[in-house]
Amino acid sequence: MIELLALPGLPEVRPGDDLARLIQDTGTELTATDVLVVAHKVVSKAEGRLVDLNDVVPGERARRLAADHGKDPRHTEVVLSEAAQLVRADGGRLICRTRHGFVCANAGVDQSNAAAPDQLILLPVDPDASARALRAALPGRPAVIITDSFGRAWRNGQCEVAIGVAGLHALEDWRGRPDAQGREMHASIIAIADEIAAAADLPRGKTSREPAVRVRGLHRHITDEDGPGVAPLVRRLEDDLFR
Amino acid sequence: MIELLALPGLPEVRPGDDLARLIQDTGTELTATDVLVVAHKVVSKAEGRLVDLNDVVPGERARRLAADHGKDPRHTEVVLSEAAQLVRADGGRLICRTRHGFVCANAGVDQSNAAAPDQLILLPVDPDASARALRAALPGRPAVIITDSFGRAWRNGQCEVAIGVAGLHALEDWRGRPDAQGREMHASIIAIADEIAAAADLPRGKTSREPAVRVRGLHRHITDEDGPGVAPLVRRLEDDLFR
Repeated sequence: MIELLALPGLPEVRPGDDLARLIQDTGTELTATDVLVVAHKVVSKAEGRLVDLNDVVPGERARRLAADHGKDPRHTEVVLSEAAQLVRADGGRLICRTRHGFVCANAGVDQSNAAAPDQLILLPVDPDASARALRAALPGRPAVIITDSFGRAWRNGQCEVAIGVAGLHALEDWRGRPDAQGREMHASIIAIADEIAAAADLPRGKTSREPAVRVRGLHRHITDEDGPGVAPLVRRLEDDLFR
Repeated sequence: MIELLALPGLPEVRPGDDLARLIQDTGTELTATDVLVVAHKVVSKAEGRLVDLNDVVPGERARRLAADHGKDPRHTEVVLSEAAQLVRADGGRLICRTRHGFVCANAGVDQSNAAAPDQLILLPVDPDASARALRAALPGRPAVIITDSFGRAWRNGQCEVAIGVAGLHALEDWRGRPDAQGREMHASIIAIADEIAAAADLPRGKTSREPAVRVRGLHRHITDEDGPGVAPLVRRLEDDLFR
């Protein structure tokens, strides 16, 4: 049995806020066998990963791309500054590989749920470090996953995925284990952290300030060590079939 | 609060078996506000979507592809017969677009958890119809999602996704709705059916014959009509950035 509980609404998070404190203040019990899933926006806000569009001077490349794709050149400038590589530009979508290795729209730069109209929210600089810090600061020391919603190559709609992980096996490797008939299973590596991230999107409302979700019943995936974080989920550039 | 419960193990499903009957026999309460998530393999088995490798005569294209990619030419023949298009072939992976429009490895043809060593399991011919039939046959009439595990373009590991849907909005469209600050949200279309499919993978063991999972707490996504099924999740070929 798995149980997913959205923590009661957090206040608007501001740069410098103690996110672990705000989470504790909700009064929700968190133990070492729980996974706490947190939408990255509150992490980014607490870490001050915010840009005011009015402070941005777009360069030549951003102006050209913005004109070609009907976007604000200042927004495009910030996207390019967060991107290691522009993977595809098409129909207003700038699909980028971020410096972390994530492939997503606009390099994770987003305007919705920002505190001010001209504010952009960036991804945390090191989401694994953010997850580890949050885990260490919470008395119950739950495993922590930080998430963002990413589009997919061949399917419509976004799914929440893991961008930072502490204390959890991101992948579950079934290769070499026997199936129900005792035969070796092939190519079964499950992206557990992404499935948990997706699951945690279900109990919360996008607009209702419920960025944090407690997941119970996943002890077998939790580790005492913080572990390698999200890295196992990120496909190496040389393994990418769609470069 | 969302609650995910794996139904106690089903017996090995055989062609012609009444899957709704087997699910009822587990004694698990299912109501019209529940979502029942079923891994497609038991659906495919009940529907007789099985091929014995010994009955397959590989054609020229299958023999060539199999030789190039180190695969069994009979397996490759079955994959090609299930594929509308071979999207990429690389390092032993044949990534195909199925006749349903799904992009996945081996056109969904899989050997693990088959009942016999030389047996291949195919996707259901019409997974939406399978979902509708199951919904109609279950006394509580829960919404039904049929799933398979697909790889992703830029991330390691597979996630369970929806391949058939009855009685549930597969996408939740937040475009035009205000965010927490009252501003219109952009590009927020959530693949709810895929997030539910991923969530339902968490309570079950891959080898423990728990193909069916009951999800409680999702009433706001459930519809009385069976609706358009999985179609909203399938990106149209002309919108595919990675053809």
